[in-house]
Amino acid sequence: MPASRRAKSKPNAFYAQSGGVTSVINASAAGVIEACRKHRGRIGRLYAGRDGIVGALTEDLVDTSKESAAAIRALRHTPSGAFGSARYKLKDLEKDRAKYERLIEVFQAHDIRYFFYNGGNDSMDTAQKVAEMGAKLGYPVTCIGVPKTVDNDLPVTDCCPGFGSVAKYVAVSTREAGMDVASMARTSTKVFILEVMGRHAGWIAAAGGLASRRTGEAPHLILFPEIAFDREAFLARVKESVQRHGHCVVVASEGTRTAEGRFLADMGTRDAFGHVQLGGVAPTLATMIKEAHGYKYHWALADYLQRAARHIASRVDVEQAYAVGKAAVELALAGKNAVMPVIVRKSSKPYRWTVGSTAIARVANQEKMVPRHYITADGFGITAAARRYLEPLIAGEAYPPYRDGLPDYVRLRLARVRRKLKSEFVV
Amino acid sequence: MPASRRAKSKPNAFYAQSGGVTSVINASAAGVIEACRKHRGRIGRLYAGRDGIVGALTEDLVDTSKESAAAIRALRHTPSGAFGSARYKLKDLEKDRAKYERLIEVFQAHDIRYFFYNGGNDSMDTAQKVAEMGAKLGYPVTCIGVPKTVDNDLPVTDCCPGFGSVAKYVAVSTREAGMDVASMARTSTKVFILEVMGRHAGWIAAAGGLASRRTGEAPHLILFPEIAFDREAFLARVKESVQRHGHCVVVASEGTRTAEGRFLADMGTRDAFGHVQLGGVAPTLATMIKEAHGYKYHWALADYLQRAARHIASRVDVEQAYAVGKAAVELALAGKNAVMPVIVRKSSKPYRWTVGSTAIARVANQEKMVPRHYITADGFGITAAARRYLEPLIAGEAYPPYRDGLPDYVRLRLARVRRKLKSEFVV
Repeated sequence: MPASRRAKSKPNAFYAQSGGVTSVINASAAGVIEACRKHRGRIGRLYAGRDGIVGALTEDLVDTSKESAAAIRALRHTPSGAFGSARYKLKDLEKDRAKYERLIEVFQAHDIRYFFYNGGNDSMDTAQKVAEMGAKLGYPVTCIGVPKTVDNDLPVTDCCPGFGSVAKYVAVSTREAGMDVASMARTSTKVFILEVMGRHAGWIAAAGGLASRRTGEAPHLILFPEIAFDREAFLARVKESVQRHGHCVVVASEGTRTAEGRFLADMGTRDAFGHVQLGGVAPTLATMIKEAHGYKYHWALADYLQRAARHIASRVDVEQAYAVGKAAVELALAGKNAVMPVIVRKSSKPYRWTVGSTAIARVANQEKMVPRHYITADGFGITAAARRYLEPLIAGEAYPPYRDGLPDYVRLRLARVRRKLKSEFVV
Repeated sequence: MPASRRAKSKPNAFYAQSGGVTSVINASAAGVIEACRKHRGRIGRLYAGRDGIVGALTEDLVDTSKESAAAIRALRHTPSGAFGSARYKLKDLEKDRAKYERLIEVFQAHDIRYFFYNGGNDSMDTAQKVAEMGAKLGYPVTCIGVPKTVDNDLPVTDCCPGFGSVAKYVAVSTREAGMDVASMARTSTKVFILEVMGRHAGWIAAAGGLASRRTGEAPHLILFPEIAFDREAFLARVKESVQRHGHCVVVASEGTRTAEGRFLADMGTRDAFGHVQLGGVAPTLATMIKEAHGYKYHWALADYLQRAARHIASRVDVEQAYAVGKAAVELALAGKNAVMPVIVRKSSKPYRWTVGSTAIARVANQEKMVPRHYITADGFGITAAARRYLEPLIAGEAYPPYRDGLPDYVRLRLARVRRKLKSEFVV
C-alpha cells in the first residue's frame, strides 16, 4: 500500500484472543472495541483475528465495526472467545521469520498499526516479539498486551482477569459439594475430591479454600503444585478429617506433584506450547485413599466448566477484564508500546483497585506462584493473608440475562474482511 | 407411653431425608416444616431424623421447633440435606423385623404418628413398608412420601423435585463449555465430553440437549442409558461433527451401556442399595475417540457439583420442591395414608402445574425411563417433544443471597431431642 494512501486514512487496529479462553475474555474484547469506537477519530477500523493470531497469518479477519453496539455490550456477559482463540506460539524471529514476515504483509495490506493481544504468559512473549519484529523489519506496530489467564500466574499485575471468576466457581462449587458430602457421610460417601486447573501455580486450588469460613467446613485439605505431595502426610490428614468431621473434602490442583517433580497424573500428551496435558489427579488420590482407608469416595473434574462458567462470574473480575481492554487502547493512543495494563491494588478492605501498566518484557514467560506465606505451615490450607488477597477477587455477582431458562449469550455476526492478498498461508 | 397422655397432647411428626441429596430437598423440608407450624393445632412437634431414617433407629432426633422462622425460610435456598440423609434401605418386614420394631419403639416413645419421608424410588419402598408395619405391629403411623430425586425417574409424577435444577445446571454448563471448545477448536481441543448422572434413566443427559437451540450448537451428541451404545456409529458421528462444525461436544450419561448391558465404565463398587457405582464413561469415550481419530479432547465429570449447584437452581424446581413438602402435610391432615404428592402438568406452553397425589405403592421401586419418542431416531439427540417436556422445568432463576462473594447458605442449630429410650441401636 502506498504511503500516500495510508497518510490519508486513519490507521487500523488488530485484536486477537490467545490461549485458553475464560468466562470474561470477551469483556476485555468489549473494552477494546468500545474504546476504539470512542476514539474513531484516531483509529480507523478494528479487525479481530479469527481464531487468534491464526486469523492474522491466514488473513482471516473479522470487521468488528459490523457488530451492533448491543452485541458488543453483550460480550460483557458472554463466556468463551467470541472471535475464536488459538494455542499458537511464534518462535524467535530467526526461527519463525516467514511467519513474522507474513504478519507484516497482512498488517500492511490492511493498514494495521495497532496490535492488541489478549492472553497469558506465552501470548505476552508473542506480543513482545511482534513489537521487536516491527522495528527490525521496518513496519512499526504498536503492541499492547491485554492480560488474561484463569491461572492468575502473570507477574506484576496484582491479579489477572479470568481468575476471579474461576476462583468464585471453585469456591462456590466446593461449598456446595462439601455440604452435599457432609449430609451423605454417615452411611455413604466420606471423601470428595475436586480436581481444579492450575498447571504450575496453585491459585485456583487456593481459591477453593475460601469456601471454608468455619472450622470443619469444606475444604479440609488443599493440594498445591507449590507443595511437594507427601503421600503419608496426606493419607493421615484425610483419616483425621473423617474421624473428626465425619468426612473429608479435598481440592486438588491438576499440577499436584511429588518432591521429584512427578505429576500425580500425567496424561502423556502435550499441547502446542509443549506443556504436558494433565488430568486424573482426583481418581489417583481417590484410589489411594480407598486402598489405605477403605472410605467410599466421589470425585469431580470441573475442566472447561470452571473457566467457562460465566453464569457465576465474579463482578469484580468482569469489571477488571473490561477495564484492561479499555486501558490497552488508551495506552496505545498515549504513544506507549510493548506494554500491558495491570491491576494495581490500593487496599484490600475495602477493596480498591486501579489500572496501571508494565513493560510486556517483564511479564512474558514469567510465572507467579502462590507465595509460601499464603499456604499454611502444614502445606494443606490457606492462611489469613491468602484470604485477604483472594476474597475481594470473587466479590459480587454479574448474572447474564436468561431466556427460557438458559443464559442468553451473544453470537457475533463475524463479518469477514475482504482479503487483499493473493498468497495463501498454511498454519 | 400410656394412652391417656397421648390423648391429651397432639401427636408429633417425623421427617427424614433419604438417598442422594439435591439442591432443593431442603426446600421440601421447608415446605413440611412451615406447613406443620401452620397446623400446630393438630400436629405437636416435628422431629427430623439426624441422617435420615438412621436418626429414627438410633433415636437421634432434631427438634425443628428450635429453628427460627428465618432459618427455615433459608432452607429454600440451601442445597444438601440440612438434617443429613442416609442410604439405608429396610428390607421386608420378615427379614428386618428388629428394625421395624425399633422404629415403632422410638415413634411410640416420642408419640410420633406422622412419618414424612423425602426420597426417591427406594425410599418410597421404605415408606410403604413403614405404613404396612404400623398396621401389622399395632402402632398405626400416617406415612406420606415426599418425592425427591435428580434422576427424574419416579413414575406417576410429571417430574420430580431435584431434577429441574440439575437439568438447568447441565444445560447451562453444556452451553458454556460448548462455546469454550468452539473457540479453541481451530488449533487445540476438538472434542469435549461431559459425563452426567443418571444411572438407569437418561433424563439428565437429555437435559443437556436443551443447550442447543440452533444447528451446530453443543451438544452434538447425547448418550442415553436407554439406547445401546454403538461404538462404530458413535465414532462416525463424532468425526462428522468435527468435520462439519470444527468440534464435537458429547453429553454422556454415567449409565451408558452396550447392547449386552455392559456399562462403559464400571467402577466395580456397590452402594448400600446394591447399585453398581459408576464413573469413568467420559475418559473411556475420550480414549476411544483419540485412538480412532486422534482428536485432542477434554472431559469433565460434574459428579456432586451438578446435584449440589443451588447457585443455578431452577425457580420452577424450587417452587415444586416446596409445594410437595407442604402438600405432604396437608394430605396427612386430610386423613390420607401411604400416599405421595405428585406434580401434575396442566399445560406446557404456557407452563402450568398443580399438585396431586398417588399411592406410594405405585411409585416404590418403579423407574420411569426416557420414552423412545423423546430421543431422535438416530439415538443421539432429543426430539421436539422432549424439549416441550423439559424446557419448562429449567425455567426461572432463584439465586441464593450472597455474602462476601459466596452463597449465604444456612446451617441449622440441629437441637437434639432428649432421648427417652435406654436401649441402644447399632446401625
